[in-house]
Parts: sequence; structure tokens; C-alpha cells
Amino acid sequence: MPATEETMALKLGPAAELEPELAAYFEKCREKLGFVPNVLQAYAFDNAKLKAFVLMADDLMLGDSGLSKLEREMIAVAVSAVNHCHYCLTSHGAAVRQRAGDPVAGEQIAQNYRAAALPARQKAMLDFAVRLTEAPDKIEAQDRQTLRAAGFSDRDIWDIAAVAAFYNMSNRLAAAVDLKPNADYHYWAREKPPAEPARRQAPAAAALPAGAQPAAAGRRRRRSA
Amino acid sequence: MPATEETMALKLGPAAELEPELAAYFEKCREKLGFVPNVLQAYAFDNAKLKAFVLMADDLMLGDSGLSKLEREMIAVAVSAVNHCHYCLTSHGAAVRQRAGDPVAGEQIAQNYRAAALPARQKAMLDFAVRLTEAPDKIEAQDRQTLRAAGFSDRDIWDIAAVAAFYNMSNRLAAAVDLKPNADYHYWAREKPPAEPARRQAPAAAALPAGAQPAAAGRRRRRSA
Amino acid sequence: MPATEETMALKLGPAAELEPELAAYFEKCREKLGFVPNVLQAYAFDNAKLKAFVLMADDLMLGDSGLSKLEREMIAVAVSAVNHCHYCLTSHGAAVRQRAGDPVAGEQIAQNYRAAALPARQKAMLDFAVRLTEAPDKIEAQDRQTLRAAGFSDRDIWDIAAVAAFYNMSNRLAAAVDLKPNADYHYWAREKPPAEPARRQAPAAAALPAGAQPAAAGRRRRRSA
Amino acid sequence: MPATEETMALKLGPAAELEPELAAYFEKCREKLGFVPNVLQAYAFDNAKLKAFVLMADDLMLGDSGLSKLEREMIAVAVSAVNHCHYCLTSHGAAVRQRAGDPVAGEQIAQNYRAAALPARQKAMLDFAVRLTEAPDKIEAQDRQTLRAAGFSDRDIWDIAAVAAFYNMSNRLAAAVDLKPNADYHYWAREKPPAEPARRQAPAAAALPAGAQPAAAGRRRRRSA
Amino acid sequence: MPATEETMALKLGPAAELEPELAAYFEKCREKLGFVPNVLQAYAFDNAKLKAFVLMADDLMLGDSGLSKLEREMIAVAVSAVNHCHYCLTSHGAAVRQRAGDPVAGEQIAQNYRAAALPARQKAMLDFAVRLTEAPDKIEAQDRQTLRAAGFSDRDIWDIAAVAAFYNMSNRLAAAVDLKPNADYHYWAREKPPAEPARRQAPAAAALPAGAQPAAAGRRRRRSA
Amino acid sequence: MPATEETMALKLGPAAELEPELAAYFEKCREKLGFVPNVLQAYAFDNAKLKAFVLMADDLMLGDSGLSKLEREMIAVAVSAVNHCHYCLTSHGAAVRQRAGDPVAGEQIAQNYRAAALPARQKAMLDFAVRLTEAPDKIEAQDRQTLRAAGFSDRDIWDIAAVAAFYNMSNRLAAAVDLKPNADYHYWAREKPPAEPARRQAPAAAALPAGAQPAAAGRRRRRSA
Repeated sequence: MPATEETMALKLGPAAELEPELAAYFEKCREKLGFVPNVLQAYAFDNAKLKAFVLMADDLMLGDSGLSKLEREMIAVAVSAVNHCHYCLTSHGAAVRQRAGDPVAGEQIAQNYRAAALPARQKAMLDFAVRLTEAPDKIEAQDRQTLRAAGFSDRDIWDIAAVAAFYNMSNRLAAAVDLKPNADYHYWAREKPPAEPARRQAPAAAALPAGAQPAAAGRRRRRSA
Repeated sequence: MPATEETMALKLGPAAELEPELAAYFEKCREKLGFVPNVLQAYAFDNAKLKAFVLMADDLMLGDSGLSKLEREMIAVAVSAVNHCHYCLTSHGAAVRQRAGDPVAGEQIAQNYRAAALPARQKAMLDFAVRLTEAPDKIEAQDRQTLRAAGFSDRDIWDIAAVAAFYNMSNRLAAAVDLKPNADYHYWAREKPPAEPARRQAPAAAALPAGAQPAAAGRRRRRSA
Repeated sequence: MPATEETMALKLGPAAELEPELAAYFEKCREKLGFVPNVLQAYAFDNAKLKAFVLMADDLMLGDSGLSKLEREMIAVAVSAVNHCHYCLTSHGAAVRQRAGDPVAGEQIAQNYRAAALPARQKAMLDFAVRLTEAPDKIEAQDRQTLRAAGFSDRDIWDIAAVAAFYNMSNRLAAAVDLKPNADYHYWAREKPPAEPARRQAPAAAALPAGAQPAAAGRRRRRSA
Repeated sequence: MPATEETMALKLGPAAELEPELAAYFEKCREKLGFVPNVLQAYAFDNAKLKAFVLMADDLMLGDSGLSKLEREMIAVAVSAVNHCHYCLTSHGAAVRQRAGDPVAGEQIAQNYRAAALPARQKAMLDFAVRLTEAPDKIEAQDRQTLRAAGFSDRDIWDIAAVAAFYNMSNRLAAAVDLKPNADYHYWAREKPPAEPARRQAPAAAALPAGAQPAAAGRRRRRSA
Repeated sequence: MPATEETMALKLGPAAELEPELAAYFEKCREKLGFVPNVLQAYAFDNAKLKAFVLMADDLMLGDSGLSKLEREMIAVAVSAVNHCHYCLTSHGAAVRQRAGDPVAGEQIAQNYRAAALPARQKAMLDFAVRLTEAPDKIEAQDRQTLRAAGFSDRDIWDIAAVAAFYNMSNRLAAAVDLKPNADYHYWAREKPPAEPARRQAPAAAALPAGAQPAAAGRRRRRSA
Repeated sequence: MPATEETMALKLGPAAELEPELAAYFEKCREKLGFVPNVLQAYAFDNAKLKAFVLMADDLMLGDSGLSKLEREMIAVAVSAVNHCHYCLTSHGAAVRQRAGDPVAGEQIAQNYRAAALPARQKAMLDFAVRLTEAPDKIEAQDRQTLRAAGFSDRDIWDIAAVAAFYNMSNRLAAAVDLKPNADYHYWAREKPPAEPARRQAPAAAALPAGAQPAAAGRRRRRSA
């Protein structure tokens, strides 16, 4: 199915014939999520572009890292909040709610992460991500030191930077083409938890379905640096 | 050779053992450019990350497009100027000088594209790229209409957006890790052209070496959408 | 019940003994909403302050106006999005979802009203409200003319301005004291509508419960100006 | 007398018949100030709106508080300077000159409070008010701690926040409707003090006439929190 | 008399022995204004710096131009309002009041020139000056065309630009050294005009004393361009 | 030779007949630089304006100071980078490359001085200059203290401020008239130094030709303050 007018404001013609690996990826999305995320539909006019995007997004959000998957989603959402990105706030807001097992957490970050009672580590992480979003030219050695003081390794700092940078790209592509999120995201993980204050609990267990991206089958583990 | 302290401000340990395809790519860089661009050295701690970056960058900057390669470099530089990115202004500034066959053109865009006497098409292209950089949340249908009125197809608009978005990512990653450009870029394409006003001429012929990225060998042509 | 540490970051001591009219108002909140909105709890340390706030908020959001109640909530949310106000995005986001009878509408406005497919009238209304929020010093006669051209009377312009201005106040008070929204707001009007594309329908009927504010009993109708 | 074209840029029709309490308030203004402030004339098309505004403004500026009336006027002016609000800088600039018994003080705050040699307490107060005006989303616990360290109680912090927030509302309403100040404000408290350096003296005694707002007759004292 | 701690926040040692021409200039200031403006006192530590400043300021503000002296003072004040410059708003605010023969005009421009009912020509002039102040990198050919359409010659555009640029310098020097204005400026031209609406009248006659700068004796007339 | 359309976007008619002192100055430029800088050509329509500009620029950039000439050029370039001034980045970028004896140094400052490995003194100097450029209204006593702590005297602080302020003027005049730099600047000091890492060496010796401005013959030494 080609990207339709519903998906974005550009008409790029019929979708490309997907390469088998990518067709299988789309199939997996339908199984796990019930739909193919519109950002992938939008890229589907070109195999090379779609493949590069999927490889980068999956590595950043699902690959091996000192940051939890929830933390990476938190960065995605905090950056998207600065950029007021409707697509990413909807899709990654859903992912944060789901990964946190908390229907409120995603909205707190999407609205203003400073209003969430975050542990110092995550506060420092989002402070850096937001500063990098707002004024990349003003990042200095001191900013990296602040992250190190909060317990992050240099490898973690790379990941924080890479995820924050990636959503500064995605937010802008989404804005430029008026990318519309799949409606289902709005309804994910909205149920009130049975026991009242389940909020701010640890990220849910590994069994959780991934946010927007099903884990690439047989993905190579990152070689530890 | 691992990324050293010279390359960036993070210490990520020894470089990964490059996969053959990537090792060949690095070798090609050395042949064509005389060095491996530091952005690639920085990514070399992890094959998956490096590969995704190379695929995306090469597709955007060297793949099939309604935008010339020079135009894509112009977007890279105009975006990097807004973000004051030392790495990208140096490396892509060199690329614009080289692709334009004009030692002045790159600096004009790097300093302020509004000071260059650009044709209306390229002016509209950079206006959009800069607006998308500065205020992605304020892009509206009218902005896309302005590009269409300047002669761009919807497919071209995607490419303008994708390149501008990509450098908003790269600029931020470079800033976050204090990525240092290879010194050679500073000296590329600086010679005064023999016949005085060679400035603002058409992009140089296909024989020109690519800016930062050697063309991926045997790269698949984009399936026309 | 006094405002507790849960409600905000300031400790203002025990709540005042509420005047009968205000006590009745709180009781009405509990009946209709199931709770007293935390913004009112926060003000409850002082009868005079609480009363002035309630009178102003209720007049603006529930009083006679050429703007529908949904439209006034849309302004509240669009302004709060610019100011990244966690409290108001949560409480008035809920109100927009409820008044619109659409679980998606509130999020669209809260994330970026430009991504919502709004009719021209409402687009002009929010453009003005956001401009007034971001750069009040730059409002000029032309801005009022744009509203008139979109079909608004001078009386309507007053109301757009007054509501936008009010939330610029409330957003700042909420930020200054770290006001926390009642958790229930997060769960309001989240159910997927049975018939798929119920989105962007007209505002729901008059029978709808008010957003955050129960209608003041026996409130005087505005004398038409 | 209705609000005329002289008062603002909107034509809202004839003034409402003022309720007795409000008519008496206007009469008191004429007695004490020689005129009814135009902001009240502007609101006079609707009794409910006028009453809510008067109650809120008078409580904030004249009610019981740990901040002196002069300090509250200083906040009004410092906020209005950020927002470049002609109406409020004129009317509250006059009030600061008058309450301070110093023709220079009001202008210093109206131009740039950082240029005034303020005591540390008032400097911290205005720093917070201006930060809350410019970037409400960035207020954090540390900002409240800075105020506490400068000697302010939590109750004082509420008042600083509430006054700063209120003028962020008033500034925007004034800008939106192009509210014009009564000309007399320009001439208040302009006389050079007889003994040269009377500047930066302590706020004048309680006998001083109120700035723009005559004290509401019989106003209830705030219950101490 | 050396610049004292009263004049600015830097201690630059004893004043230089003024060259005769400059000493005469200071004497003339004392005669005409009753004092030497503090900006000149601040520069008086060095004859070369003082001379260059005086030559440039006097040429710009008092030399031959298609802009009236009042208009040049209006630019000075509008620019200084953007930069919130206490020194320049005080001294040039006084000059506008005086040259306009109107105690209100200076304050309107100092607070927000958009609130003054300016003729289209002067509105365009200040729009350009403010835009040049806020975003010099965004000035384009269209901005110059707008001035031409408002009746300005290219020579006038130079003067608008040069005056606006000059106060962007002066404002910053004043801010950097915390330059304090002479107190007398606050009291200039504050008297209510006898016949009410003398406001917005034409600039007063040539006999008016110059604002801050006494006309340089025997100054060469500008050669018409 | 009059300023032509090549020089700037304004047509100011034939150049004035230069006064002998200024004609000699132009001749000296041609001898030393091979051309008259276009900023001087632009001013050449009026002797008084040209003279004031030359006196001020030469005093600031070549006069006696605790700042080296290279440091003053660094300020010029760092300020011009914030303002994205094509003219000044080209001409003073050339001057920094030349004075530093380093073809890379100028570009580092022009792109982002934070990416250059500056000694603490120069880092503090440029931090102040950039802050003064971006937010002059927010300079406070603490900013001056930071400079003093970095080893600057009050006299040095004046010079940092005066140079930074001057380029905030020049950048704006250049932007307003679309001033074009002489093409030769682009080619100055571009040769790769023979011994590799000559970068970041101390400023070159006094024999170096001045950047844009030939030293005024027989210029009076600054009287020590």
C-alpha cells in the first residue's frame, strides 16, 4: 500500500516494490503492532532510504546500550516536545507509556520533562538532550562533564547524543512533510493502573512489545567498544 | 586506527574490527580523499552504527535526486551555518567549493546564504531548509507551496527536507562529541580561479571527486517512485 | 483539606476556612468531577484569591461568548503548549478531548495545533493566540484585521485575547509553584470512538459536563455589550 | 462613558450599566486619581469581567502580603518591560515613581532593572519574575530555592509568582486590544526631589496614595496562612 | 574631572588631558546642557577614542540628512528599547521628548514604538531599524524595497541603517560598562503642554537645543551625494 | 572610483572628492593590500562619515591596548559569526588567519569559537563578547568579574567591549546595505603551513601586515589612562 494523502502532505507516487527483507519487516510490524508505522509508509517509496532509516532507528532505539530502552524513548519524547512534533510525540509518547508501564509518564515527558519527578541521572540526561536540541552550538566540555558526574560513561554520552540528534532529524522530516501518526498510538497504554500509584515504576519487563519498531530478527549484537 | 582524542572529546575505546564492506569503504576514502573523514572514524567503534550512517549519508548526498549534488551540499552548509557546526562547515564547505568549482561559493553559504546571489530556485530551497532548522514546528502547507511555486516536485521537497533534517542530526552529534574535522578540508579548492569571475558557475562535471563521501561501489540506483 | 506537598512545591500552611459560596463550589466540583482541581486547592489558602480566580476563569471559559466552549479550551491548550505547562496541558487537554467528543483532538492541539486540520476560523484564532503568547509586543492592527477577515467580531477578539492572556497567567503560576494536575485528567475521554473516523467532528452538545470548571450555580448571564 | 476609540482598538459597543459596587469604585477612582484608568474603562462593557479583574488586581497589588506595595509595582514594571507593554509601563511606571517617592526609580525598572542598584532581595525577586516571564517552562526547584535563600517565604514566592503571572496576562490583553494609557500617568511624580540624591530611598510611608487602584472599601484582610 | 564610579562600573584611572578641541566641546556641553553627558566622560580617558566617538555621533545625529533630527532620535530610542539600554533610553528618550515638543512621544517610542500612532514613513523606518537590531542576518533586498516604497531614498536608507547600527554599538558599550545616565535627563521636557493634544506634532523648530550633543562648531556640511 | 553596484545594494551617487588625508589613506591601502576595502569604498560618498569610521576602526583595532591585535580580530570574527555577517567574516577571517600565521584559526572562530582550543583568557574574552552581542541587556557585574578573574584589567574590559560593540555596528551596517567583501580576502593566508601542526601558535610578529586597515601614518600613541 502506498503512502496516501492520509499519511503525509507530499504525493510521492506508488510505493516501491519492497526488498524481501523490508517486506518481512513490514509484515512483522503488522503482526506486532497491528499496523505499519506511518513514518515507514512514508519512506516506502524508496528501498535505499527506507533501509537506512530502519537500520539507524533500530540500532539507536533497540540496540545494545548503557541506556535502557525506556530512557531512549524518554529522550525521543523530550526532544520532540521542544520541537512540538505531532508525529513523534504521539508515537513515542505511546512507547514511553508502554515501556514505563505507566499511562502518565509519557505525557509528563511530552508536556515538560521538568515537571516529572525524575531521578538525577535521567534529569541530567534530558537536560543534555534538550540543550543539544535548543542550542547545539553552545555545548561545551562542561556539559559532557555534567553527564559524567551523573554516572554516564563516554559510550553512554554518545548514545544520548545520537538519540537526541536522531529525533532532531525525524522531527524535522515529519514537520516538513506533515507526517500523520497512526491513530492507534493515541489509545495505547491509557488504562488506569489497578493499584493506584504505579507511576514512576521501573521500566516493564523484556516481554513488552517494542514501541514503534519491532526488533530486527537476528540483529547482530553490538560489539562492545 | 581508533578514533583518538584528536578526533573527538569522547573516548570510546578501540575501534571495532570493521566488516569487510566497511573496511573497503574506508580504503576507498583513503584513496580518493587521502584520509578517512573523522565523522566515520568517530562512528568506527561500532559496525552497525557506522553502516547505518554511511548508507543514509550516501543515499542522501550521492543518490538519485532532482537536486544536484551541489545543491545538497548547499543545504548541508546552510543548515550547519545556523547551527554553527565547526565540523560540517569545514567538511561540507570544502565540498561546496569543490563541487561549485568556486573557492568563494562555499564560504558565502557558510557565512550567510542570503549574501550569495542565488537563483530563485536555490534561494527558496535554502529558505525552507533554514526555516525547518530554526522552527520546525512552524512549517505549514504554505511553505511547501512556496517550494512548488519555485519549481520543486513533491519528491524534491522530500529530498530538501531529508537533507536539511539529516544535517540537523549530524550537527548535533558533532557538537555533542566535539568532533574535529580533518585538517585537509581547510585547504581544498582554495586556489583563485585563473579567469577572474568564475564565481557562481554551474556545478562542475561528474568527474569531480565526491565531497566527503566516495560513491559506494555498485550502489543500487534509486527505483524511480 | 489543605494543599499538600503533592499539589505543589510551596507549603502555604493550612487551607483557609472557605466562605460558604466557595465551599459549595468545591462540593460541586467533587460531585461533577470526582475531585477538586488542584489549581483550586492551591488557591484555597486565601478566600479572596480563590474567589477572584474562580470568577475570572468561569467567566472566561463558561460565560456568554461568540466563541464556543470548545474553542476557548482550544486556546487554553494551544497557549499552554507554547509554554510547555504540564498542569494546563493535562487538565485542559482532557477538557478538549471531552468537549470535542474526540480522544485525539486534545492531543493534536497540545502537541502542535498546526498539525490539526482546523477550519480557517479556528486556525486564525489559534495563530493569534500563539502570536500573542510568543511576542505580545509585536501585535499590530494587521493582526486584528486578520481575525476580522476570518469572521470574528471585535467582541470575539476580546474573548480570544482574554482567554489567551489568562492562560499565559495560569501557565506561569503553575510553573512557578510546580502545580501538579489531578491524576484523573489523564484518563478522561480516552476511549476509541466506536465508529472509526469520529475525529474533527463538531463540538459535542450542551449536555456535556464542563471541562475543569463546573458552571457556577445561578451565574448571572453576561449583559450583552 | 463607554470605552472609546481613544481607549483601545476594539469597538465593543456601549458600556454596561455598572453594578452599584463597580460604579462606586469608578467614582472613587475619579476622586483619587482624577480619572478612571483606561484598563477599567476597557473592561466596563461587562460587569462580570470587570468585577473579576478588579478583585484580582486589587488583591494582588493592595492586599496583605510579605511584599511591599512598591515591590509588587516593581514586579509589574519589570515584567512589562520584557513584554514592551506601553499601557502597563506607563501606568505602573507612574506607580513606582510615586510609591518610591523617586522620579527616577520607575524609569530604571521600566528600562532595565539590572541597571538599578537594587538590594539583593529585590534583585532576586525581579530575576525570578523576569525568568518566569521569558521561559516559564524552565523554572525548576532551584529557582524557588534561590528565592528562599534571598529571604522569601513560600507565601512570598506565591505572591511574586502571582503578580508576575498577572502582568503577563495584562500585558497581553493590553497588546491585543492596543490599550492606551490615560495621559496623566506620564506626568505623575516627575518633579526633581529638593535634596539631590533622594534616589533609591526606602519605599514611602503607608500614607502614599495607591498607584492605579484605590483600595477596595472594606476589603477583608487576608487570613494569615 | 575623571569618570568616577558614579559614571560607570569600570575604573580607568584619571581622565586624559583633553586636546583643546575636545576641551572646548566639553565646555560647550556644560553651557548648553548644564553638564557633560556621561558617555563622553566615560570616553574621556583617551583623546583618540573620544574624538572618534564625537565625530561619528555628531555626524550621524546632527549632520545633513534626509531624516529629521527627531527621526534620528526616534531610531536611537527604538533600537535602545529592543536592547533595554538604560543609558540610551534615558538620554535619547529626553531628546525625543524635547525635539518633538511632546513629553509623551519619547516614552511611547521607548516603551514600544508600535503603540505610537506613527505616520507610515516613520513606522517603516522603525520597523527596519528594529529588524536590523534583532536579526541583522535576515535583512534582504525586500527590506530595502519596503523602505523605498515608503518614500526613502538610498541615501536615507544608509542613514537609517547607520543610526540604527550606531546605537547597537552604543547600547552594548553602555551595557558592558554599566554606564549611568546624568540624572538631569530624567527631568527634561516633562511639563504637560498647555493646550491638551500637542502630541505627535511636527518636530520643533531649529532653535531647539540639540539632544545630547551640542552641534560641533563650524562643522562641514555634508557634500550632497 | 565610486562605490559601484558591486560594492553594495545602495546607489549613493558619485564618491565625494576625498580630503587629502583620506586620499592618502586609500593610496596606502592600495599599496599594502592591493585594494581599498569595500567598507571604505562604501563610506567614500562622504568625507565626514569616512573619517569618523576610519578613526574609530583604526584606534580600536590598531591602537595601543592590553589586547593583542590578533585578539581584537578574534573578537571581530566571533561577533560577526553570531550575526552571520558575510562581509566581516570574510575580511576579518582573513585578518585572523594572517595575524595568527595559521590558515585554520580564522575559520574556527568564524564557525564556532567554542570548537577552538583557546586558552582560558581568550575563551573568557570571546564568551563576554558573544554574550554582549546576543543579550546586552543581561550583562551584569558578575560578567565583568569573570573577565577580571581571567586576568583582564578594567582597561582591557573597555577594549573588549568596545571592539565587540563596534562589530555589532559594522555587521548591521554591512547587512543593511548588503556590503560585498573584496574577493581577495578569500585567498589570503590559505597556504598549508610547511611544518604540520603550526596551529594555535602565538600571534605572529609585529612585522605582519595589518588585517584590513593599514596603520595610520604617524598615529598618536594612546595616552596611558
